[in-house]
Amino acid sequence: MNYEELFAQTALNSWKLVLDGLEKTFASLSDDDLQKEVAPGRNRIYYLLGHLTAVHDRLLPMLFLGERLHPELDEPFLTSPDRAHPDPVAATELRSAWSAVNGKLAEGFATLAAEDWLKRHTAVSEEDFAREPHRNRLAVLLSRTAHAAFHSGQIVLALERK
Amino acid sequence: MNYEELFAQTALNSWKLVLDGLEKTFASLSDDDLQKEVAPGRNRIYYLLGHLTAVHDRLLPMLFLGERLHPELDEPFLTSPDRAHPDPVAATELRSAWSAVNGKLAEGFATLAAEDWLKRHTAVSEEDFAREPHRNRLAVLLSRTAHAAFHSGQIVLALERK
Repeated sequence: MNYEELFAQTALNSWKLVLDGLEKTFASLSDDDLQKEVAPGRNRIYYLLGHLTAVHDRLLPMLFLGERLHPELDEPFLTSPDRAHPDPVAATELRSAWSAVNGKLAEGFATLAAEDWLKRHTAVSEEDFAREPHRNRLAVLLSRTAHAAFHSGQIVLALERK
Repeated sequence: MNYEELFAQTALNSWKLVLDGLEKTFASLSDDDLQKEVAPGRNRIYYLLGHLTAVHDRLLPMLFLGERLHPELDEPFLTSPDRAHPDPVAATELRSAWSAVNGKLAEGFATLAAEDWLKRHTAVSEEDFAREPHRNRLAVLLSRTAHAAFHSGQIVLALERK
């Protein structure tokens, strides 16, 4: 494995570690548990599951990995705060969407060559990217890894109150 | 900047983004605010500040960047849970330790060549590293970035209750 491949593999491992932790947490929770808030008056785990699914779904077109699977999750889980609407999706469906989105991402990541990670993503223009090459796909992956870890830290607070 | 350098720079940016966020949060909090819990009965921000400082301090020898600055923080902030002892360090000192440790890390990171990130760290033996080259310094940096983001997600919960 050359430098580029090892570097890309190490970054992907870090994404997988955080996702595996979340996966294990969600699997340990009943649909009723998903209704728990991470702290009094704050987001429910249900909302964070939808939020993370929507954010990860948006990575598909952003990283040129295909069409989105669940654009309908943006309005309730990205644009709106928790409890702005009656729950739009049953917990079972939300769990399926979460698995499908992360599965499609994993398949897409497996098709990328190491050097692809330093290429442009769709949220930056070709002109801007020429000036700012650090706004690459790897930066997006690492940012979403930190984002997933951020909410993971919140979710465990509810978990230990089960 | 060549491929290797851009890869390393992108990973370092992700560390810096998470640290800058924490830095801004800690700066916005008074010493009294640090006594707030992230959720009822859970860790105080004071404890998480000490915990993050101890974890980052351990990176210095682990990544061959020099001696530790604050090994005395391990017992109260890593080995023991919050409130196991009377607070061992005043908030002002803890803030200084946090800045000094992250400052020394930033200086150390600046001395590393891009390819150094794929080298062995001190928590893995040379024999194990020969078999498992993904247990490199980059993996440690990304793991600590996720760790900092994890606790950052908890700290903001207390912040918004200010």
